[in-house]
Order: sequence, then structure tokens, then C-alpha cells
Amino acid sequence: MNANKILLDHGSGGRASHELVREIIYPYFENAILAQMDDSAVFSIADERFAFSTDSYVVDPIFFPEGSIGNLAVNGTVNDLAMCGAKPLFISVGFIIEEGFPLEDLQKILRHMQQAAQEADVKIVTGDTKVVYSKAADKIFINTSGIGRIPDRVNLSGENAVPGDRIILSGTVADHGITILTQREGLCMDFPLKSDTAPLNHMVQKIIESSRHVHSLRDPTRGGVATSLNEIAAQAGVGIMIDETAIPVRSETRAACELLGLDPLYIANEGKLIACVAAADTEAVLAAIRTSPYGQDAQIIGEVTAVHRGKVFMETAIGGARILDMLAGEQLPRIC
Amino acid sequence: MNANKILLDHGSGGRASHELVREIIYPYFENAILAQMDDSAVFSIADERFAFSTDSYVVDPIFFPEGSIGNLAVNGTVNDLAMCGAKPLFISVGFIIEEGFPLEDLQKILRHMQQAAQEADVKIVTGDTKVVYSKAADKIFINTSGIGRIPDRVNLSGENAVPGDRIILSGTVADHGITILTQREGLCMDFPLKSDTAPLNHMVQKIIESSRHVHSLRDPTRGGVATSLNEIAAQAGVGIMIDETAIPVRSETRAACELLGLDPLYIANEGKLIACVAAADTEAVLAAIRTSPYGQDAQIIGEVTAVHRGKVFMETAIGGARILDMLAGEQLPRIC
Repeated sequence: MNANKILLDHGSGGRASHELVREIIYPYFENAILAQMDDSAVFSIADERFAFSTDSYVVDPIFFPEGSIGNLAVNGTVNDLAMCGAKPLFISVGFIIEEGFPLEDLQKILRHMQQAAQEADVKIVTGDTKVVYSKAADKIFINTSGIGRIPDRVNLSGENAVPGDRIILSGTVADHGITILTQREGLCMDFPLKSDTAPLNHMVQKIIESSRHVHSLRDPTRGGVATSLNEIAAQAGVGIMIDETAIPVRSETRAACELLGLDPLYIANEGKLIACVAAADTEAVLAAIRTSPYGQDAQIIGEVTAVHRGKVFMETAIGGARILDMLAGEQLPRIC
Repeated sequence: MNANKILLDHGSGGRASHELVREIIYPYFENAILAQMDDSAVFSIADERFAFSTDSYVVDPIFFPEGSIGNLAVNGTVNDLAMCGAKPLFISVGFIIEEGFPLEDLQKILRHMQQAAQEADVKIVTGDTKVVYSKAADKIFINTSGIGRIPDRVNLSGENAVPGDRIILSGTVADHGITILTQREGLCMDFPLKSDTAPLNHMVQKIIESSRHVHSLRDPTRGGVATSLNEIAAQAGVGIMIDETAIPVRSETRAACELLGLDPLYIANEGKLIACVAAADTEAVLAAIRTSPYGQDAQIIGEVTAVHRGKVFMETAIGGARILDMLAGEQLPRIC
């Protein structure tokens, strides 16, 4: 890492984030569980396997169409657990609140958290509240951590993807990130944009039941689909080829991206997953995903290859192929 | 709750904090595990009992004699798990960092976290880093969450204290809080003050091995010894009588408290515990505590009573007795 200060880039989810974690943070905490680099830590206690995950939410604005920092925080940790195949069970909540924050807003956020926990069927079992002076934090930050239990036969990891696997994307891309950005900047769009924040654990349950050959699941949050695909390619040491025309994008989201000059493949999603599945089971898994209210627009978007290992290629709409690299730095700060 | 805005008082650990949790937050998340109101949530999965805890650290200054926000964050969650009798196993870390934060400072904090994790024998297994614009957060905030496993025969809770129990305090009070306050305000003292931040899990292990009749453990952090005793009195529906002269206070800490007009019983500790123990086992537990490097100054400070239920009384040095109430609001913000 070249910088001697922490930059917004280091929180991007892209290349600078990965460098910070790999070069600066990881060496202090080095252990086999942390080294997995999946969405959750996975470990065994007394012959049971558990997933454990944490995320802090600093999204700005804190309220947006389809939710708030509250349901975002619950859904995000639920999804990180689910991507390891775990059934999410228990969630902790840590609030950092700026002095003077309206109680009414806190109650709206709590209501969103309650609804999200109910939908995901998880319990919020422990918490902490800190209040800091005005201007020492911007409104409210929420950390959620979670514990889930992994069923016996389930073994999902980014490193399990193998050449020949088909890649399924559970729905349209970029809806969350572009909604936050336009809300924050006060951009008036002629068309309605809304976040896709949603709990994916019930969808994952259906996926696992539909096939014993699901190898990797990942939710493409910060850094978007392009970053998650690069993570899988690096972890598994495989190539990935995707088809641009197969990637679902809502027309409103595409229009907003075009206006703002942003690539939807790099923009955060909060209710989508990418699945790497053995070819023979692709249709079964796709059908399972589409039974979920959050999987109606699922598509097969590409496959895992034995060539171009560690890289992601995209066949473009105009016929060529180009490398889809990980984003170097920050495209959209405080998106989640 | 009367306020319509979040005040510093609501993060104090005192009465306003309890009201916020009980009246505003709890009703949204109501469940039997959250209702325990101990330092960790305790639940069973597959016949094993686990403790799960979370805390966000916003201490200012971030560096202080004997440590930083880094070891404070690891020790704090280790201790919350240990107070339920759990062996702490796995810790998560969530950083929220202000843009421009010096990398060198982050590395010092990471080194402190590493050392604390090694001493406590816990693994940091998962994490998250968010970076926010300059002025959207003050330097760095750290959330740690942790999971521990509770041995079969252990059953500790604030509600288990019974009349006749003796109350042991593991060492001197107020060292952490008074150190942070003097450092932050730039007060020059003629005597050295240092935080007592320390992992207490090995001490707890010795306590559990020394007696099967330890009923409650609690670490008196925000709100100090007075607040923790009030919590136990309320949870167990018992009275508590303590002896002011038995409470160990370092002479430097006492001097600083007197200069600043602060009561050491309300000031945060980060490496101390209060134990409620059946009278017959008091000496065995006291001896066990004193084998720990962090328990050299342990004392019996009082007992649990059948009278004055829900209240804490203190026999004062001058011979009278007075109610030791929970603090109403904030004495020292951003102390942990």
C-alpha cells in the first residue's frame, strides 16, 4: 500500500480495500479462519459448523426509498451469513448516535430493523448504544454482527468454484447504489428508483435444497457484481466469462447510470446473489431462485473457465470481449 | 423517556441509557434472550450454550497510558463474554475510519488488538472496514462482537444473586475513566494515571474452578461499580449493602477524583469485575482472584441482603449509610 493515510478508496470494497485488509490488517490477526476471506468466518464448535459475520453501516442518507440504514443493517448481515450456507439465527446491534439525533428517526430505524428481522426469521439478542458529541459522528452508524448454523452437507466458499460451473445472478444490478447516490445528491429523476435491500436467506435455503452442487454464493454489495466475480476468480484460481447482454438491469437504473456515467456492474446491490453451480444443476437452481420474490429476474450470466485464471472477462453487447477488472478505488462512498 | 432527541445521557450507561434501551429499543426486538439483560446474550444451539456480545468503542483520546481504542475494544468484548462464564473464542472487528486517518496510527491500534487477542487467547476471525468523509466521524470507531462457549455446569447471571452472597471486587476502581478524562482535557497531574484495561477471562476461569457457588459476575464499565451493583439489585430483586472503606482506590486516582469533584464509584473500569458468591466460598474465590495479575487488590466489599430490595446502600467512612443510586445521566462521555 502506498498511502500513509486512510483514504475513501480504502473503504470502497475494491482493490484499495483488499490491499488494506491483505497488507495492513490481516498480518496482525493471521489465522486460518480469517484467511478464508468469504462473506462470513466459518468454524466448528463441538462438531457443529457456524458462520459469524460483522458489518458496519454508514449509509448517507439514512432513509431512502424501500428502507433505511435499519433494514439495510439487518439484511446485510443476514445475507453475509446466508452466503456461507448458514441459517442466520442471532444478530447483535451496535449503535453510534450523534447527540441531538431525533428520537422519532431512531424509532423509524428500529421499526425497519424489527421488520427485517421478522422477515429473515432472526432474533436481535444483544446490543450496545454509544452517543457522541454533535459533529463527532454523522447522524447514526449501525454495526450488526450475526451467527448462523451451517447444515451438515453444505459447503460453500468462493474457493469452491470450478471450471464448467454456470454463474447465476439472482436479479437486476445496481439498484441500491444508484438509489442512494441520486437521493444523496438530490438528483431528480423522472423515474422511480428504489433500493433492492432484502434478506436472501430464504432464497439460499431453496437453492441448497434444489442442488447438492452449488459451489459458491456471494452477494455483490460494495464494488458490485464485477468485484464479487473478481473475488471468486482470485479465491478459486479460475477464469470467469460473463455475457453483458445477459445481465439484468432495470431500465430506470440503466438510464440513471448513463446520465451519471457509472457502470452498473460496479455499483452496490443489497438484495442480490451470484451463484456458481455445476452445469447439470443450473436449471434446477435457477428455478429455485425464481420461486423467491427477490429472484424473479434471475439469469444465467456466464460460466467459470479453466483459461484466464484469476481474471474476469466479459463478452460485450457489440461482440468483443474485455477484462472486467476490480475497481481500483472508491466510486461511491457511504453507499452502505 | 421525556426527550425527543438523543442526548449524551443516553450513552452514559446510567439511568437514561437504561430507559432508552428498556422503553425505546427493547419493545421492537422483544425476545427472551434479549430480555436477560446480562453482559452477553446466552442461548443454546445443538445442546451447547453460547454467549454472544457486542460493543462499539468511541473513546477519545484513542491513545492513552496502557493502551488504545484497540486493546480496549478486544478486552471489552472478551470481558462481556467472560462475565457470563463463557470461554471467549472468536471476535469480529468493524472499523469506521475518518478519511485522512494516519496509517501509522491504525497500525499501532492493530498491534494493540493483536496483543490483546493473544493474551486473551481469542481469534479475530472476521471484519469490516468503512471509511467516511473527513468530519463525518471523529478519527476511528471500533465495534467488536464475540462468541464464547459456556461450560456445562456454569450458570452466571445478574438475576442469580441471593441474600447472604458476599460481593467481591477484583481491584481498584475508576482507573480507566479518570485516565481518559485527564488525558482528554489535557490535565497535568503530578502522579501517573493509567487505564486498567485488561482481559479478565483467565481470572474468570480460575473463579469458576474455585467454587460452584458463584452466582453473578459483572464488569463495572460505563457507570462504574455503583451502576453495576444497581443492575444486579434490580435484576435479582435483592438489596445490596457495601462498605465504603473496603473499596480499593489507588491514591493517585483518588487524588484526581477529588481534584475533579468526581465519585470513583461512578467512573468506568475496564479490567475489573464484581462477583456475587455464596458466603462459604468467599475466601476460596477471593484467593482465586488474587492469583491473577489483575486481581492483586481484590477485596470483599459487601453483601447481598433480603432488605431494601432493588436498592444499593453504602456504609460510609464516617459511619452512616446512604443510598448509592444509579447515575441519572452522563458523567463522562466517550470514555470507552
